[in-house]
Amino acid sequence: MQAMENFIFQNPTRIIFGKGTEAETGRETAKHAKKVLLHFGGGSIRKSGLHDRVCKSLKDAGVGYLELGGVKPNPRLSLVREGIRICRENKLEMIIAVGGGSVIDSAKAIAIGVPHAGDVWDFYLKKIPVTESLPVGVVLTIPAAGSETSNGSVITNEEGWYKKDAGGECMRPKFAIMNPELTFTLPPYQTACGAADIMAHVMERYFTRVPSVDFTDRLCEATLRAIIDNVPVVLAKPDDYAARAEIMWAGTIAHNDLLGTGRIGDWASHMIEHELSGIYDVAHGAGLAVIFPAWMKHVYKNDVARFARFAVNVWGVEPRFDRPERTALEGIRRLKSFFRDIGLPTSLPELGVKDDRLEEMAKKATAAGPLGNFVKLGKDDVVSIYRLAQ
Amino acid sequence: MQAMENFIFQNPTRIIFGKGTEAETGRETAKHAKKVLLHFGGGSIRKSGLHDRVCKSLKDAGVGYLELGGVKPNPRLSLVREGIRICRENKLEMIIAVGGGSVIDSAKAIAIGVPHAGDVWDFYLKKIPVTESLPVGVVLTIPAAGSETSNGSVITNEEGWYKKDAGGECMRPKFAIMNPELTFTLPPYQTACGAADIMAHVMERYFTRVPSVDFTDRLCEATLRAIIDNVPVVLAKPDDYAARAEIMWAGTIAHNDLLGTGRIGDWASHMIEHELSGIYDVAHGAGLAVIFPAWMKHVYKNDVARFARFAVNVWGVEPRFDRPERTALEGIRRLKSFFRDIGLPTSLPELGVKDDRLEEMAKKATAAGPLGNFVKLGKDDVVSIYRLAQ
Repeated sequence: MQAMENFIFQNPTRIIFGKGTEAETGRETAKHAKKVLLHFGGGSIRKSGLHDRVCKSLKDAGVGYLELGGVKPNPRLSLVREGIRICRENKLEMIIAVGGGSVIDSAKAIAIGVPHAGDVWDFYLKKIPVTESLPVGVVLTIPAAGSETSNGSVITNEEGWYKKDAGGECMRPKFAIMNPELTFTLPPYQTACGAADIMAHVMERYFTRVPSVDFTDRLCEATLRAIIDNVPVVLAKPDDYAARAEIMWAGTIAHNDLLGTGRIGDWASHMIEHELSGIYDVAHGAGLAVIFPAWMKHVYKNDVARFARFAVNVWGVEPRFDRPERTALEGIRRLKSFFRDIGLPTSLPELGVKDDRLEEMAKKATAAGPLGNFVKLGKDDVVSIYRLAQ
Repeated sequence: MQAMENFIFQNPTRIIFGKGTEAETGRETAKHAKKVLLHFGGGSIRKSGLHDRVCKSLKDAGVGYLELGGVKPNPRLSLVREGIRICRENKLEMIIAVGGGSVIDSAKAIAIGVPHAGDVWDFYLKKIPVTESLPVGVVLTIPAAGSETSNGSVITNEEGWYKKDAGGECMRPKFAIMNPELTFTLPPYQTACGAADIMAHVMERYFTRVPSVDFTDRLCEATLRAIIDNVPVVLAKPDDYAARAEIMWAGTIAHNDLLGTGRIGDWASHMIEHELSGIYDVAHGAGLAVIFPAWMKHVYKNDVARFARFAVNVWGVEPRFDRPERTALEGIRRLKSFFRDIGLPTSLPELGVKDDRLEEMAKKATAAGPLGNFVKLGKDDVVSIYRLAQ
């Protein structure tokens, strides 16, 4: 049958979007729990006053809380274990994540770890499926990971720097509070990294071999164009509410899996990037900006028509049906050029990655079998992609 | 603030999409109820064998059921009352709707009527808000109304032919089973009416005065183009799975309110059409095909830029920035021409509507106040729109 795949789609997360919505945190939390863990990263939410506003909202709603800060980018397993201990000892019933994808992923890990008798890392090693979770609520401050409505979490185990993901429908947050104003203070580099992450989520789904998925193709293209249009606006004017709002909402839709319905996504670039940010601790979005164009160059000949469509519909490249390959390559060139224009690295040396560990990373990335679905990639393919990214 | 509105978005309906998925009806139903009302329209689901397959699935899952068929287009209040009586007398716990929007809307009306001590019509007269509902499950056979995931229901009261809507978050179906194969046997006219209904749901949201809603503008345009591309395909080849699937999924997304996030929709055309189909019992989609282009001609001068964008991004009209009004008008012309091409009426006489009751309908339509948000329309505006549709 030459058509989309059967699928199940359900995304029950309650989105509360707009100005001042963090004031709803307490009321939304109280629907699920009376005593919670407030989980966050560094001091930025204290400096901005967000921490105070969230705490006040929880108190006003009669919700008790303990705090655990200190989540870093590429969130660490050790902090997850500490969170689990705190929740168990204090019988906390819910995790409230205030931050971006790292904080949310860490909160989700704690939430599945608490009711599980064994080691939480077993979920990430895929030894056992996720079937139970404490509820998680989110106050989002960085549009990037899409974790605010997704069913997954990515954690880095410092013992060996393994970066692994776990997923399960029960992991979708109960609510996500999204106030674009909270992103006004994001530095340009983090804004750009977030944009690359969002675009990568769409492109992983867009590059599929499933035929006749035009409707979701178009939704993907719409989402990519929203990011491409608005990121330069906010880099020039960080407090442009309209543009920040577009990016924030597009970032969620990019990864709530609507854009993947009926499709089989690729996800090789994410896996290839995970090895980078596992070892070198680079920002996920920056790593993706380097890897994705290289992946494209390695695979585009397997479906020139799709890459040409990407070039025309996303980047406005002139459709040259007499030279489809040229059209396809121009799309890849524009993507790379866009990443460069918004201040991202587009080569491994810019990330501080030397060529002495490429084989090792490629081996780790493909240890469990070939990567990707658009084209199946073995170890040598992954090395080639790293080399194309140099 | 020149940007999108604050919004809350939550759409928890579980979508089970694809070939053969009606076999899941029993398993999905059993999560919510042991004894249900099976609600449907005429004999088409018996002829196609769908009725047997759904019944078998319910039996296999240990779910008991009583049946109530006979739902007509523009579903009637009298049948709703009968359904409520049957559910109460037999302590039925859930309504399973097998059909299109009329059947689903009728099921939703029964579901809110059962736990309510007073008259179910009070919800439609907006005398009381909807706060409680039996669960509703759906096996969809007609992509059109979007009722399979929406929070609303439209019912016609035969005493005076009042067509009214009720809505509430608890009215969203628990699950929607969507097998595009079930739509292969839809006659061309019904397929076209469904397409007009879907397009109208998008256009009601698209034509907004809220600024800076580019992302959802693009999603709207993507959805409209999916319909425009695929309807001619299925009219030529009714069993084209790929095209039927695109239409079916687009029909849901058109009305689950994702496309309305951050926007204020118009909805005047729906209200103006309701008067038509209330009195003349015309198909809702056919009525919309007549009314929408007329509404556009009446209002486009209030925001020529938006209508020009519609023309360019949806219909591929050449963008003439030196003559924006010409570009805008060409979009309206293409919409009308598309409706005509797919076999729909585009004037009131084709619907059998004479000019002797236009004033009466306009008066009824505006009895509760002016219609619409793009432009507020009084009685005289509505008469003008009816006249533009002649």
